Amino acid sequence: MTSEPIRAVTFDVFGTVVDWRSSIIDEGERVWRAKGVDVDWPAFADAWRGLYQPSMERVRSGATGFVPLDVLHRQNLEEVLARFGVTHLSDDDKAQLNRVWHRLRPWPDAISGLTRLKTRYIIATLSNGNIALLVNMAKRGGLPWDVILGAEVARQYKPHPDAYRNSAAALDLPPGQCLLAAAHNSDLVAAAKVGFQRAFIARPTEHGPAQSTDLEAEHDFEIVAEDFNDLADQLGCG
Amino acid sequence: MTSEPIRAVTFDVFGTVVDWRSSIIDEGERVWRAKGVDVDWPAFADAWRGLYQPSMERVRSGATGFVPLDVLHRQNLEEVLARFGVTHLSDDDKAQLNRVWHRLRPWPDAISGLTRLKTRYIIATLSNGNIALLVNMAKRGGLPWDVILGAEVARQYKPHPDAYRNSAAALDLPPGQCLLAAAHNSDLVAAAKVGFQRAFIARPTEHGPAQSTDLEAEHDFEIVAEDFNDLADQLGCG
Repeated sequence: MTSEPIRAVTFDVFGTVVDWRSSIIDEGERVWRAKGVDVDWPAFADAWRGLYQPSMERVRSGATGFVPLDVLHRQNLEEVLARFGVTHLSDDDKAQLNRVWHRLRPWPDAISGLTRLKTRYIIATLSNGNIALLVNMAKRGGLPWDVILGAEVARQYKPHPDAYRNSAAALDLPPGQCLLAAAHNSDLVAAAKVGFQRAFIARPTEHGPAQSTDLEAEHDFEIVAEDFNDLADQLGCG
Repeated sequence: MTSEPIRAVTFDVFGTVVDWRSSIIDEGERVWRAKGVDVDWPAFADAWRGLYQPSMERVRSGATGFVPLDVLHRQNLEEVLARFGVTHLSDDDKAQLNRVWHRLRPWPDAISGLTRLKTRYIIATLSNGNIALLVNMAKRGGLPWDVILGAEVARQYKPHPDAYRNSAAALDLPPGQCLLAAAHNSDLVAAAKVGFQRAFIARPTEHGPAQSTDLEAEHDFEIVAEDFNDLADQLGCG
């Protein structure tokens, strides 16, 4: 198979670029426990993230129109707070807690790898996160994106094909000149259906110490990399 | 009047950040004359740009749905080529010439000023250019945007209020926490109608040596700056 030359390296963000779970647990135990949210924070983080796919499915299925992820996260937060018996938070507190997704920390290799990749390629988010979330995360964490793409620009959530297709179209590139880098096999499989090239990077503790999924590449992806610096090596970046 | 704290500094691009006219003339005389496009390049550049506002007005008025600026530029190019009697270009040549808008050069102060502003603020395009155009321009010219906003994200062309309003909304910021920096009085007046703060930076040769418009601030804008480094000074950036 002859591959087209890659012009853009696009990234899944939650789990692939940033460590959402430990970031939420850390802020929860450090900040929110002192404000009376005395819950099992690992369980709380997992429950909140557990509502992520079902909430997006309402958009993907066409049951509702597009709404940005901040809104879905907030709806899901209300449900998780109720489930954990937290009833005392003000609206301002809830808005502030909801923005923990804007404050997620990059994995240790993310910034150095992205900085190298940026010298040769357009580096873009291809995330279900909304623009504000991704910009705030980048400013805080130092992620050097060339452009923020994904659900809000594409008006559709991954793994719907339009999320990938519209992101490539926004760059005016054929999908074959775009590579998706992700820690999730299913994301890469969906991207390939519209013609993206693929790089798998395992993040074996994304879901905590007992993670049992996405520990390795399950398909014949163009690239399997140890981390973002290995990806930069394999893509010829100095 | 008490201003809100500024969180994002957004920029008009054509004329304010990049010198579209001299870039087109230079490429025309250097590259396209050798390919047989032996026209008066200053006149050609002005004619092409002259069709810019009328073409966007079809979208703003609702006569047509949103189409990205690359498409409008290409339609306008066909018209200008015909007007100047250029009939021999292939479709590939025309596509390549149309992308001169992706290759516009920054004004000399743009990169240093933006780099300083980026240390304190979200720096964003708020341009009628489409995403691909603005990303390619940034990669080539070294413009360090945090995020590409404007017509394609807002699905509306400036000076329609939705272009500004939807760009602020994409950042999840009240318009009053956004500042528009522009070399065009009319752009700033339109932005203020939805609540943006404003900085005027004169670009007295944008339209060539005989420019007669936008030579100075015509309204009581929050900031009038000599160039982007003066803007960074006035906004407290080291």
